[in-house]
Amino acid sequence: MAKAQPRSGERGNLRELFQPRSIAVVGASADSRTQGYRYVRLLLDYGFDGPVYPVNPNLSQLLGLPCYPSLIHIPGPVDYVISCIPASGVLELVEQCAQKGVGLIHFFTARFSETGRQPAAALEQELLARARRHHIRLIGPNCIGLYYPRHGLSFRYNLPRESGPVGLLSQSGGNAALIVQGAGTRGLRFSQVISYGNALDINEADLLEHLGADPETRVIGAYIEGVKEGRRFFRTLQQVTPHKPVIVLKGGRTSPGRRATQSHTASLAGSEGVWQAMLRQARAVAAADLKELIDLLVTFAWLPPTCGVRVGIAGGGGGPTVEAADQCHEAGLEVIPLPDDIRGAIKDRAPLVWDWVGNPADQSILLQTGIEAEDVLKMMAQSPEFDLLIGNATTDSPFEPHLEERLLHKELSAWLEIRRSSSKPLAVVIGATEGSSPWRQQMFTQLQTQLGAARIPTYPSMRRAARALSRFIQYHRLNR
Amino acid sequence: MAKAQPRSGERGNLRELFQPRSIAVVGASADSRTQGYRYVRLLLDYGFDGPVYPVNPNLSQLLGLPCYPSLIHIPGPVDYVISCIPASGVLELVEQCAQKGVGLIHFFTARFSETGRQPAAALEQELLARARRHHIRLIGPNCIGLYYPRHGLSFRYNLPRESGPVGLLSQSGGNAALIVQGAGTRGLRFSQVISYGNALDINEADLLEHLGADPETRVIGAYIEGVKEGRRFFRTLQQVTPHKPVIVLKGGRTSPGRRATQSHTASLAGSEGVWQAMLRQARAVAAADLKELIDLLVTFAWLPPTCGVRVGIAGGGGGPTVEAADQCHEAGLEVIPLPDDIRGAIKDRAPLVWDWVGNPADQSILLQTGIEAEDVLKMMAQSPEFDLLIGNATTDSPFEPHLEERLLHKELSAWLEIRRSSSKPLAVVIGATEGSSPWRQQMFTQLQTQLGAARIPTYPSMRRAARALSRFIQYHRLNR
Repeated sequence: MAKAQPRSGERGNLRELFQPRSIAVVGASADSRTQGYRYVRLLLDYGFDGPVYPVNPNLSQLLGLPCYPSLIHIPGPVDYVISCIPASGVLELVEQCAQKGVGLIHFFTARFSETGRQPAAALEQELLARARRHHIRLIGPNCIGLYYPRHGLSFRYNLPRESGPVGLLSQSGGNAALIVQGAGTRGLRFSQVISYGNALDINEADLLEHLGADPETRVIGAYIEGVKEGRRFFRTLQQVTPHKPVIVLKGGRTSPGRRATQSHTASLAGSEGVWQAMLRQARAVAAADLKELIDLLVTFAWLPPTCGVRVGIAGGGGGPTVEAADQCHEAGLEVIPLPDDIRGAIKDRAPLVWDWVGNPADQSILLQTGIEAEDVLKMMAQSPEFDLLIGNATTDSPFEPHLEERLLHKELSAWLEIRRSSSKPLAVVIGATEGSSPWRQQMFTQLQTQLGAARIPTYPSMRRAARALSRFIQYHRLNR
Repeated sequence: MAKAQPRSGERGNLRELFQPRSIAVVGASADSRTQGYRYVRLLLDYGFDGPVYPVNPNLSQLLGLPCYPSLIHIPGPVDYVISCIPASGVLELVEQCAQKGVGLIHFFTARFSETGRQPAAALEQELLARARRHHIRLIGPNCIGLYYPRHGLSFRYNLPRESGPVGLLSQSGGNAALIVQGAGTRGLRFSQVISYGNALDINEADLLEHLGADPETRVIGAYIEGVKEGRRFFRTLQQVTPHKPVIVLKGGRTSPGRRATQSHTASLAGSEGVWQAMLRQARAVAAADLKELIDLLVTFAWLPPTCGVRVGIAGGGGGPTVEAADQCHEAGLEVIPLPDDIRGAIKDRAPLVWDWVGNPADQSILLQTGIEAEDVLKMMAQSPEFDLLIGNATTDSPFEPHLEERLLHKELSAWLEIRRSSSKPLAVVIGATEGSSPWRQQMFTQLQTQLGAARIPTYPSMRRAARALSRFIQYHRLNR
């Protein structure tokens, strides 16, 4: 059997390891409900460009591929192994990997230290010792592994096939999927996502360093339950944040949360105060929860930098206008009155209501005046008085479908035009999701897709938009 | 022409006025895009049980009803007038209403003091003076009016036809619709909703007093931009809150928000500090935004009172479990460890993982053990250690539709059983809305409907559930 070239040493070169030329799925299964089936199927579906070797002594073939009784029986070289076998078999697997010259093993295999049991924790340590001895790097154990669409790797069927500017490291595979899907409906795509579970070998510092150096990754997101190498992580963070924003959500901020991280990824989450101070000092951006993490990723990936807080807002009726003003102000943005030149321009076109229109521009005042809220937004885009813009598609409209669709289409055109012609950050709030009729939900979903395609960030509520924009500005003020 | 019996005096008896025997829509229109058309159509659609008289000098009939050139031409008595005519005609209309013995006028008609213009404000004052002279009460102007499904009144097509336990007063018609719809998708229904715009005559104090006395209304919601009778409102609030929870969202909390309330409903929103102190002293519950207002209405309408904070949580994988623990703790709930007797019961049924399961109970640990997260929730429901329960259907599940549907169905059965057999508050988080595939969204929508029918409150995120439950407990601690 051909032995492949040995890969990198203990630290680094994850870049090469995460782009394997051949992959074996050990513990492959014909049962479509198992991850051992899915990994094989996903490599085919996402178009992995190299040999895929299912390994299972009880199968002769799987999804049209020949199946091997063990890793050793595979004819060609294997760069990367995905392990779906029970924990009892992992030590033998590492020995086989050493024989085959495998550089990287991802252990979907779980039930190690996270069970809280001593024998399982001891097995995990032995696994690490053997892998180190053979210079094999490990992802996990107890994790869902790699999503790297450019290289045909995925861990779920419903993740996008296209690549994008965001890299993500996540101790939780479930959260990784929720983040990729949630950001995905807003049009955002990912360069690579690494779910790394118990962080036995490859840890948060390795992954941050790796994504920091990845040319495809412009923004980094992280869901972390506990750090393995605190000082190195902090140092790396300080090096990365001036060039790439790093958005971090910490799981295990509270005592019951820390109890939960222990049974999830055996993480010993440290003091929340120390953690927050560390993030602040390294100029990373802390997210309060999963939804805010997604909001921030979309914001940082797409908006041009700004340090100004003077916001112009347009769209929506009276209630949403009041809410927009309150919530933007509460988030630290400055909702300035309309400047005189814009008031003058509105006076020319809507003499009956001009002195009644303000910022936020209330769409219901402008109905049937020959000027719309989005026209006011265009004026704001051209005025030096405004630093950033928010289009408010929070609808409380009483209109019939075809009429509302026409109004939204006009708004969309205006937003796209502003995106093309202005260098100011533009965000759009699409808030009509809770309690809307199905046709309206569908219409807004379509709108969101169109805005996402133009890389205009959308948010499900004004409060979330205002908070994300405010954090974005803070970051640029600190890093200017 | 028969002159109807005069109704009540200046104050009170809104109960009778809001249940008119006959209604005229003045400014009725054949153009289906106008509110003048919709009010007539809605009275027919929602089954108003009395004569409906469209008034428009240019129409002979509308929607099969004879149309009258003026109010005076209507043959029978008219209790209630909905005005959709321009502001210039309102004074004459009031005189005609006086002749006809009308007791209540709702002015959808707008462009009064909210325009910021002196002549419009003066006209509004004259309108009030004349109405007072004739003992006619006014709703509005500049508002969408009444939604009172039991009496066949609505202002939008897409509001439920069934009645429920929540009364709502709202200065914004758009917000009123968003609240009824948003709470509606979670299964909550309303007794009556009054959108009252500029509050020229009937104001927040009148409406609070009215809903406080309404036997059908068990919980009161309010969206208020400015108070007209601050002292009376405060006194009424103090009288109502010991018997009925009152949840208040204040619009115009900030300076730009106050600017926006002026052009919306001509409201002079007072100091935010004074307002918050007043709500606290009267033991009302302050909502931070529209979504929180909806969360609180659902919570207060359906959950049995509790003063205990010890919460049991079950469902979801590792990431959501950590998030649930953190967010419940951060909201002030106590996520206690599993008590010994429950640990013992789990040991009997799932000996391989029993010591690994905690609170929150992580569904992914329990997979294929013969015991599910919802079984743990049932144990929590029976244990005296827990005061309240949260089922977590925040899915990060990798399962195929049919499998996930079966799992959810089992969870649903367990929740329904707990609702029937336990006196503890039970809340369910259905968080799979952002970024989910269409089939999953549909499945969760259906689940939400089934839970709503059983009067189990649902929330779109753990954070929102935890905050609402915590506010609910605070209220009962203050009012025990």
